[in-house]
Amino acid sequence: MADTIFGKILRGEVPSHRVYEDAHVLAFLDVNPLSRGHLLVIPKEPAVTLEELSDESAAAIGRVLPRLARALKRVTGVANYNVLQNNGAGAHQAVAHVHFHLIPKPNAGEGLGLEWVPKKLEGGAELAKELTAALAG
Amino acid sequence: MADTIFGKILRGEVPSHRVYEDAHVLAFLDVNPLSRGHLLVIPKEPAVTLEELSDESAAAIGRVLPRLARALKRVTGVANYNVLQNNGAGAHQAVAHVHFHLIPKPNAGEGLGLEWVPKKLEGGAELAKELTAALAG
Repeated sequence: MADTIFGKILRGEVPSHRVYEDAHVLAFLDVNPLSRGHLLVIPKEPAVTLEELSDESAAAIGRVLPRLARALKRVTGVANYNVLQNNGAGAHQAVAHVHFHLIPKPNAGEGLGLEWVPKKLEGGAELAKELTAALAG
Repeated sequence: MADTIFGKILRGEVPSHRVYEDAHVLAFLDVNPLSRGHLLVIPKEPAVTLEELSDESAAAIGRVLPRLARALKRVTGVANYNVLQNNGAGAHQAVAHVHFHLIPKPNAGEGLGLEWVPKKLEGGAELAKELTAALAG
C-alpha cells in the first residue's frame, strides 16, 4: 500500500501527540479534532481498510478501546462518545490506513454529527442466509 | 443493567436474523437498516457502554469485524462501509447494550451520513500527557 501520514507518524517521521502504544496499536490525538480529546487508534500493520486487517491486529484494537474510552472520560469529563471507522472514500475515509476515531460528544454542537435515515428491513431471512454462507466460506 | 431488546435477542426471546455467533459475540441484521446489509455486532457480556466492557469481549468484537466486513462486501457488492459505535443518549445511543454498527455505504444518499466540523488541536501536548497518565493509572 502507498505511504500515508499515519505511516509517517508510526515511524516517527511526523510528530504526533501519542497517548498509547503496544505491539499492534498506536493511539494519538487527531490534529483536526471534532471535540477535545478526539483520538485516532491505528494498527501498526499496514492495511488500507478494515477487511484487509489481520484478526490479531483487529482484536488488539478492539481490546484497547474500552481502556482508551475510560481515560478519555476521566480526563475530559465527557460521558458520551462515538467510535467511528470509515472504509473507502465514498464512506468518508480520508487517510488510506485503517483508523478508529474515538470522539467525545460534549454537546449537540460538538463531536460527531450523524444523519440517520433508517428503512425497514426487507428480505432479511434470505440476506442473513447469504451472509452466513459467506462467513462460513 | 436493565434488560434491553438486545438482551432478549441474545436469549432468543425476540427473533432476529443472525449471521454470526461465537462464545463472546453475536451479529445480526438491523431491522431498521441505513442500507442493505446493515449489521449489529454485540457482546454477549452485558455492558451498557464500551468503557464498561471487558478487554476479552472488546477484543472478540474487534477480531470478527474484518471477517464480517469481507462477507458484507462479497454479498452486497458494496466496497465502502462504516463502523459506528455510540455511547450515551447524547451520542445517539438508542439501546442500552453495547453495539457496533457495520453499515454498507452504497452511495451518497444511503448508509451512514456524517456531519464533520473539525477544529484545530490546541493544548495537545498537555492533553496527551493527561491521557497517558490516565491510561497508566
